[in-house]
Amino acid sequence: MATFPLDERLQRDGIPIASIGLCQLRLMNDRRWPWLILIPQRPDVSEIFELTPLDQTMLTFEINIVATALKKVTDADKINIGALGNIVRQLHVHIIARREGDPNWPGPVWGFGKAEPWPTDEQQVFAAGILENL
Amino acid sequence: MATFPLDERLQRDGIPIASIGLCQLRLMNDRRWPWLILIPQRPDVSEIFELTPLDQTMLTFEINIVATALKKVTDADKINIGALGNIVRQLHVHIIARREGDPNWPGPVWGFGKAEPWPTDEQQVFAAGILENL
Repeated sequence: MATFPLDERLQRDGIPIASIGLCQLRLMNDRRWPWLILIPQRPDVSEIFELTPLDQTMLTFEINIVATALKKVTDADKINIGALGNIVRQLHVHIIARREGDPNWPGPVWGFGKAEPWPTDEQQVFAAGILENL
Repeated sequence: MATFPLDERLQRDGIPIASIGLCQLRLMNDRRWPWLILIPQRPDVSEIFELTPLDQTMLTFEINIVATALKKVTDADKINIGALGNIVRQLHVHIIARREGDPNWPGPVWGFGKAEPWPTDEQQVFAAGILENL
């Protein structure tokens, strides 16, 4: 799906769901939390402020529709949104559905424990549900 | 400075630096990391997608100028941006300067260890430096 250069680790850690206006949307392969990632399809960008103003606005719009879909599909208690990039420098935005009592609640998901891969069929059903709600 | 209702914990954990278009800008009282917080001055909002489209665009613009100023003042290796809200539900956006080898690098800052208060004079000097670069 991607023709832009995608970091190896981002590629390995999830599956692509869709290519929307600016970003590729991916689902992390970690069933502990419904966890989506938006990656602007632009080369050599690691900070949000390195995007053009138009791209920043597009990114905001896409975060908004993805977060709204994730809330609708999961009925999460809280959506967590983050752009960290301390390990993977290619700009990517995490959008995660959190629930009271989930692993590491109320702490952050990053760096906590070990990913638990989705069963392939469940991952595809979940991804399809997100796609329907975009 | 604030006339909008500000969560008690946000109030306790930092000092106000400025009121910009949409948000109040605060500096967390934790010298381990230069750590700023933007709080949209709107009541009863906990998710970014609950803001109006115009407010979302304003927030993006304000994140951009604050992150740019923080990068300039600190020459950080990476700026971390996050809207979590698992503990404090009032919508607030963290903008944090990270450096390789800082406490908990490359992990996230949230929930890690104990805050180390700034000496008051240093905190004020730092806040003034940010303000000059907005």
